[in-house]
Amino acid sequence: MKIITSNPGKYEEYHKFFEKMGLPIEWIRMKYPELQADTTEEVVIESLNYLISKGYRDFIVDDSGIFIDALNGFPGVYSSYVYKTIGLGGILKLLDGEKNRGAKFVTVIGLELEGNTHLFVGEVRGTINFKPQGENGFGYDPIFIPEGHSRTFAEMSIEEKNSISHRGRAMNKLKEFLIKKMI
Amino acid sequence: MKIITSNPGKYEEYHKFFEKMGLPIEWIRMKYPELQADTTEEVVIESLNYLISKGYRDFIVDDSGIFIDALNGFPGVYSSYVYKTIGLGGILKLLDGEKNRGAKFVTVIGLELEGNTHLFVGEVRGTINFKPQGENGFGYDPIFIPEGHSRTFAEMSIEEKNSISHRGRAMNKLKEFLIKKMI
Repeated sequence: MKIITSNPGKYEEYHKFFEKMGLPIEWIRMKYPELQADTTEEVVIESLNYLISKGYRDFIVDDSGIFIDALNGFPGVYSSYVYKTIGLGGILKLLDGEKNRGAKFVTVIGLELEGNTHLFVGEVRGTINFKPQGENGFGYDPIFIPEGHSRTFAEMSIEEKNSISHRGRAMNKLKEFLIKKMI
Repeated sequence: MKIITSNPGKYEEYHKFFEKMGLPIEWIRMKYPELQADTTEEVVIESLNYLISKGYRDFIVDDSGIFIDALNGFPGVYSSYVYKTIGLGGILKLLDGEKNRGAKFVTVIGLELEGNTHLFVGEVRGTINFKPQGENGFGYDPIFIPEGHSRTFAEMSIEEKNSISHRGRAMNKLKEFLIKKMI
């Protein structure tokens, strides 16, 4: 199994998760073109098609985003671009004075295995904190507090984040799928 | 010549411009998939390739965006998505308290003609106004004041906007190219 991503933080979360299963995961560190689309699923399907057309097989890709209720789902599928331009400061500024701080984090894993493609979706709802907190994780982790918790993702270890996060949920679905294949 | 766009405002500006030349322009009103990319040029090249692969010939596409200096070029190639989510209000909020209100508007026209593709780029610098003004145009026009002027694009007629805008400049390059072809 290979994961194709340019994001070291994502790779670390997959590595930690699949290490426990005894399934080594190989990192192909590269960027690939992504479509402008309304949903993460569409982006992932097109990424799978593109990478398959380039000859890649037996791999996963991960597209994730944060969808903020009061901002009509912004930054959504453009989370990475928005992070690099206006950053967490920009997001907090947009929410300044806003009572509704609800948001959801979404991960869609695309898998190519034995000539077939599959999608595994994980979501977690939560709230946007008033300031960045914590040093772990990456991206929007310092401002996202998952529902039922009082710390941001960036204040958690990878293992703890994986046990409750959008990506953890999607990885669990992938894991169940792979286990069924094996037995 | 055909223009492929889902945006009536864009079509109007092309129609007005090419009507003067006596060159009728046909509107194919449709959406097509666009790539996530750092530059407008990349988006347009991939759109041309996609539409050519679908059998379209002798057509233009237009991808435009506003790049705001203080926001590291945001919203850039995602201007349309950002307009639909956080809107002009979101942009003004992000610039609240910001001294540098410089920005540029960019249009890239992609042309397919007789089996070849061409790009025509037009830019205009200006400033982001403190509030929306004017009823004409579309998108970011109500908050953009072009350099050397005191009114927003939305306070100008289509003809006046075309005479100074990013799109007008790109259309002029396209016009020169077409005239050279004809003589």
